[in-house]
Amino acid sequence: MDKGDRTKEAILEESANLASLMGLNGLTIGTLASHTGMSKSGLFRHFGSKEQLQIDTLKSGIDRFTQTVIQPTLKTPRGIGRLRALFDHWLAWATDQGLPGGCLFIAASVELDDQPGTARDYLVATQRQWLDLIATTARKAIATADLRSDLDGDQFAHEFNAILLGFHQASRLMRDPRAVDRARAQFERLLRDALPLRAPASPARLQQTPGHE
Amino acid sequence: MDKGDRTKEAILEESANLASLMGLNGLTIGTLASHTGMSKSGLFRHFGSKEQLQIDTLKSGIDRFTQTVIQPTLKTPRGIGRLRALFDHWLAWATDQGLPGGCLFIAASVELDDQPGTARDYLVATQRQWLDLIATTARKAIATADLRSDLDGDQFAHEFNAILLGFHQASRLMRDPRAVDRARAQFERLLRDALPLRAPASPARLQQTPGHE
Repeated sequence: MDKGDRTKEAILEESANLASLMGLNGLTIGTLASHTGMSKSGLFRHFGSKEQLQIDTLKSGIDRFTQTVIQPTLKTPRGIGRLRALFDHWLAWATDQGLPGGCLFIAASVELDDQPGTARDYLVATQRQWLDLIATTARKAIATADLRSDLDGDQFAHEFNAILLGFHQASRLMRDPRAVDRARAQFERLLRDALPLRAPASPARLQQTPGHE
Repeated sequence: MDKGDRTKEAILEESANLASLMGLNGLTIGTLASHTGMSKSGLFRHFGSKEQLQIDTLKSGIDRFTQTVIQPTLKTPRGIGRLRALFDHWLAWATDQGLPGGCLFIAASVELDDQPGTARDYLVATQRQWLDLIATTARKAIATADLRSDLDGDQFAHEFNAILLGFHQASRLMRDPRAVDRARAQFERLLRDALPLRAPASPARLQQTPGHE
């Protein structure tokens, strides 16, 4: 990586921090200039347009997300444990191990949803990958027989993601001290409903079926 | 209502439409001037500051939310039916019966979460009222014995709200044609887990307990 690349990387780290706080639309080349001490013309040379700056900022966020959430999760063996690891690492990402303003992608979601263009397209593609990653992780937990064989992986991913959105709002907007507990309870219910049904060997056995209390 | 009030109301309707599309932070007195044909100085007389414009816009959104979601829901008798009505009317609000850019309050949530001030305080208070309304509606369904007596109304409200956030992202950002189906499936699972446990009179009875398939 040459000096220009390192400079650009440092600018984008600051840019991702700022965007998590003030939004991608609040992030202009002027704002970034005043926060990095770079000249506007220097930043223009790096990014060319506000939209390119938004895309590069999202890419920088993806790099951090990969390091904070995905790489550590993959150290846990496939199965229900890896799903729990994915959930836990995401909570850490959205609180103390990620960006100062919480999850950049959640903020960008509502900012860009009515704003057609390459930044929106890029965000949709990364969000699609995220949902697919959750679904794939769930399917691996089906393969290890941790989860029931008829579980719909895409539906599971949708619900997993909705729990994260609920946590983010409760935590960041509402500053709800119970936000983590509430999200965990919702997640455990999702897992419980995804467990394999045990064979109804006897009435006593049936009454003990996990997740059915 | 005098002419000045009617003018202000009309401006705020347009303002809520615009804010749902471009965000509360994207909504400036200049943008509003160009969309309403009013002069900037005229708008300044009405609102005085950008923050007051944001608060008045949120208030206008609350009026529309009350008419679109809350009033029709209250026509359904208390119980599980009213919870379903609340969910359905909210979906209509976020799609075809509300604002052009979807739910203004979801957009405002991520915009204002790191922006201390009276607009944020107002949004938090309205979101608190919304969560309390869901919890109260759930408690009335406990009172009618539609839902189990040990259900935690606040946890139920948190989960209900998370389902709406998941729907909004799937629908507006991802344009997922299955967004409504996915949200409904998640909501029905929430309701199923909130049903009263039937007395385990016999093994056959147990196997038929609703929601436990």
